[in-house]
Amino acid sequence: MLPICTLERLCKIFQVLERYELDHIQAVSSRDLEKCIHATSVTIRKDISAIGRVGVTKRGYDVIELKKHIGEHLKLFRKRRACLVGLGRIGGALLEYQTLQDDGFEIIAGFDNNVNKVERMRTDIRVYPVHELLDIVKSHRIELGIIAVPGEAAQKVADQLNKAGIKGILNFSPVGIALPDRVIVENIDFTTALRILAAKMG
Amino acid sequence: MLPICTLERLCKIFQVLERYELDHIQAVSSRDLEKCIHATSVTIRKDISAIGRVGVTKRGYDVIELKKHIGEHLKLFRKRRACLVGLGRIGGALLEYQTLQDDGFEIIAGFDNNVNKVERMRTDIRVYPVHELLDIVKSHRIELGIIAVPGEAAQKVADQLNKAGIKGILNFSPVGIALPDRVIVENIDFTTALRILAAKMG
Repeated sequence: MLPICTLERLCKIFQVLERYELDHIQAVSSRDLEKCIHATSVTIRKDISAIGRVGVTKRGYDVIELKKHIGEHLKLFRKRRACLVGLGRIGGALLEYQTLQDDGFEIIAGFDNNVNKVERMRTDIRVYPVHELLDIVKSHRIELGIIAVPGEAAQKVADQLNKAGIKGILNFSPVGIALPDRVIVENIDFTTALRILAAKMG
Repeated sequence: MLPICTLERLCKIFQVLERYELDHIQAVSSRDLEKCIHATSVTIRKDISAIGRVGVTKRGYDVIELKKHIGEHLKLFRKRRACLVGLGRIGGALLEYQTLQDDGFEIIAGFDNNVNKVERMRTDIRVYPVHELLDIVKSHRIELGIIAVPGEAAQKVADQLNKAGIKGILNFSPVGIALPDRVIVENIDFTTALRILAAKMG
C-alpha cells in the first residue's frame, strides 16, 4: 500500500496529464509538474517510481504513457457504482456534473428525505426516499456513496451506508464522519480547504 | 514552515475539535482522533507537538485548549477578505453556505461574466461583472479568491486574480491552474477526490 500523500499526488498528476493530453502536449518533466502539484520535482519523481518503472527521456515523461501507467496502477479505469445521498444544491450540482460519468463513476441512484423533491427531480438517475437506501445499495451492488446532506444528518447517513456494505464514501457535508477502518472516507470540506489555504498563506 | 501534510492534518484535527466542542466533549486522545483523521495516533501526536507544547493528561488533550492552540498557530482566527468568481450552481451554493462567515472568511464581492445574473442575484454580497475584477480586488484589498467557473475559464480567472495581487486561491474548477509560487492554490476537485477514494479502495 502506497503512503496516502503519494497516492494523492499521483491522482493530482493524473489530472494534470489529462489536461496536457487534451492540449496535445507530448512530454512532461517533473519540473513542469512541480508547479501544478505543489511538491518538489524530487518528490514527484519518487512518487512516480514508487509504482514501477516508466520510460523517461531528456524531454521528460511521455504524457500518454505516464497517464496510462498511473491510471492502471491506481485502478482508475475501473467503473465504480456510486449513489448520491442528499439532492439539495450541492447534490443537484453533482448530478449535473458531466465529467463524473466519463471518469468511471456511474451514479446508479439518488436519495433524499424530501419525497416531493424525489418526485420533482429532472434527471435520468433514479431517485428514492432515504429509507430505501439499505435495500437499494445492497440490491444494486453500489460500492461508493456520495454524502451531500447537511452536517447534522451526515453521520446517520454514513452509518446507513456502512450497514449496506458500502466500500467508500465521499463526504461533502461540513462535519467529519467516524466509520470502521474498512470503509474509506474522503472528505470534500471546503471550510477545511479554506483553512488549509489560510494556514499556508500565513 | 510545517510540512504540507502536517498542516492539512492539523486543519482536519481542528475541525474534529469543533464538533467535539459542540457536543460538549472535554477531552480527546490521539486514538480518538485516529478514526476521524485517517492517520495513526503516532502521526497525530507528532503533528500536534510540531506546533509547540500543549497539555495532555491520561484522558488526552483538552478539546478547547488544543483547538485554541492549533487555531492560533495556524492563524485560523484571523479574518480573511475573499471574493467569489463564478456564480453558477457551485458559486451560488457557496454564497449561501452559512458557516463561511463564522469561519473567518468574509466574502466581499462576487463576479460573473453574465451581467443578467449579476443583476438577478439575491444576496447581500455585492456582485460585479468579471471585467471589474482587477479594480475591485485591489481597491477592497481582497486576499483570497474562490474560483467556481467552468474548467476552460479557470486559468484566465486565476491570471487576473494573480495580476490583482491575490495571495491565495481556492479552485473549485475541475482543472488545475498554474501560477507563480507566491500564490497559494488549494484545489477542491471532486473528480480527483473520487479518484483518490477509488485508489484507496483498491
